[in-house]
Amino acid sequence: MGIFEKLLGKSEKVPVEEYEELDLSEYEAEIEKEGTTYIRVVEVTGINEIPEIRRQIYEGNIVIADVGYIKHDKLQLERILKDLRLLAEDVNGDIAGLSDDYIIVTPTGIKVDRNKIKGVRS
Amino acid sequence: MGIFEKLLGKSEKVPVEEYEELDLSEYEAEIEKEGTTYIRVVEVTGINEIPEIRRQIYEGNIVIADVGYIKHDKLQLERILKDLRLLAEDVNGDIAGLSDDYIIVTPTGIKVDRNKIKGVRS
Repeated sequence: MGIFEKLLGKSEKVPVEEYEELDLSEYEAEIEKEGTTYIRVVEVTGINEIPEIRRQIYEGNIVIADVGYIKHDKLQLERILKDLRLLAEDVNGDIAGLSDDYIIVTPTGIKVDRNKIKGVRS
Repeated sequence: MGIFEKLLGKSEKVPVEEYEELDLSEYEAEIEKEGTTYIRVVEVTGINEIPEIRRQIYEGNIVIADVGYIKHDKLQLERILKDLRLLAEDVNGDIAGLSDDYIIVTPTGIKVDRNKIKGVRS
């Protein structure tokens, strides 16, 4: 991953903009609701990570579940995928496999397009 | 990927809700802007795919660039990563490597958390 770190740089802190306090509580609630969405990678080693994934999805974040550690344990994998699928259905999100290692789980309003956009080999 | 298809099911079409036409053009513009966000996987075989990725990001979608085909061509890869980085900066989005094969590029308001949530080995 050296090349990616070098090229992509380190994580940048997002500055919280200062604002003058106004008496508009409804407006503030809206800001909070429409805050930043995060993509979080969660390493899944068993059902222990399900509650954390659920929390992230309920908060409106996207989870990329790294199931590389359990992919050869079909029974475990099936159980976890079933839980994640129910979670995605529950919030009207989505779930799709990116590769054998990664499962994308999305919150409300975010969908995964199953049609991979194919490259034009030049 | 057989197990994923079996477990996760096929792509579902998202129905476009029918609505009665109202004379509220501002409101309609807002609906369009706040529509569904898609995660799209784009297979990158060279710079030919950059315009399509740019279009997706401008539309507010998340792109997972599959650079598996070019990862051994360091020069090509560096050029593409540079373009994608400029794109992400342009829209105040984000860019991060998920693995050697996948680069996540996000639109305005969506960030990638660099801190992988580690699993609890049970």
